[in-house]
Amino acid sequence: MIAKKGEVTMAIRYPNGKPLSIKPSTPLDGYQHRGMDFEADINTMNQRYRDTNRAIIYKKPTPIKVGKLQHRSRMGPLITEAYFEMPSTTDYNGIYRGRYIDFEAKETRNKTAFPFANLHAHQIKHLQQIIAHGGIGFLLVHFVVHQQVYLLDGQDVANVLDSGRKSIPLDYFRLHGIEVPWGYVERLPYLDAVDQRYF
Amino acid sequence: MIAKKGEVTMAIRYPNGKPLSIKPSTPLDGYQHRGMDFEADINTMNQRYRDTNRAIIYKKPTPIKVGKLQHRSRMGPLITEAYFEMPSTTDYNGIYRGRYIDFEAKETRNKTAFPFANLHAHQIKHLQQIIAHGGIGFLLVHFVVHQQVYLLDGQDVANVLDSGRKSIPLDYFRLHGIEVPWGYVERLPYLDAVDQRYF
Repeated sequence: MIAKKGEVTMAIRYPNGKPLSIKPSTPLDGYQHRGMDFEADINTMNQRYRDTNRAIIYKKPTPIKVGKLQHRSRMGPLITEAYFEMPSTTDYNGIYRGRYIDFEAKETRNKTAFPFANLHAHQIKHLQQIIAHGGIGFLLVHFVVHQQVYLLDGQDVANVLDSGRKSIPLDYFRLHGIEVPWGYVERLPYLDAVDQRYF
Repeated sequence: MIAKKGEVTMAIRYPNGKPLSIKPSTPLDGYQHRGMDFEADINTMNQRYRDTNRAIIYKKPTPIKVGKLQHRSRMGPLITEAYFEMPSTTDYNGIYRGRYIDFEAKETRNKTAFPFANLHAHQIKHLQQIIAHGGIGFLLVHFVVHQQVYLLDGQDVANVLDSGRKSIPLDYFRLHGIEVPWGYVERLPYLDAVDQRYF
């Protein structure tokens, strides 16, 4: 196992035998690279939650519209022209403690607020619908500069939007949200925040 | 609105004002084209379930691995090389009557059985995990030649696989599954079968 810059490797393995690369809570080379790892951290966390049978949560594939295909013998078709599409819903969903769970994960370099420009209105509407149907729906926001992650319920997100604001203040997250602390073996243990908020 | 061959159009609209194209239960030009419409029928049904606020269920995007991107000014990037990936889970999931719901939809031209070759083992395992976590997980199979659709619980699917069979007999679907009748306004009302089986 080769350690990349800013990464400390330890000989810890998942229950399924896969090696786990551990990064320190405070990266050795500063927070700059953290942003790129947020999605990877959530995916790793979800893998671990599945491996330990705590929850079955997956990231949905990125919607892509296929334009042109080239058929090849002995192999699957090659896509030679395609476009990214706007997601209909949120990035992550699954089941946890018998409940349907659904969330969107975003990050911002803004120091004082999360701008709504980072979310689509229909994603907020989707979270509200999930909540209305008895599910758990929230937003997970990484404030990159502060290295802080907060869970905020979808209805709270909708309330701030309905109030006419263009962003959700960091203070609102601190008051109404739940902070997800960075961990070691469990890098981003967001289900602990879900436990605290919804159970 | 132009009626395609084998399609009867009627001036019925969804509650959201979108026009709905209605096809007869027995297609005018035989069953041959039905197979191609199965996924479209499920998607239309899910749209209607969302519009009527009965359930929030979506098809997951097809997973595609992007190889090469071409950046364009004023437009999103163009994908010039990509490949279809194997789905990690099933095609559809969402929330219904407060429960997490998850299913895979397949069709076969086989007259007497559904071959397991049409499913991945990890998809069956996924349905079992969903059930173990308190969710609803099933397989929806369209027997094209018979024009019949059956819902079969994920644990039943796993039981047949574990028995060493290479396929699930149609008779097994008839005995242990729930038939989903073709409808008009509600083309493929599979949630009625879910009601019958799980509630």
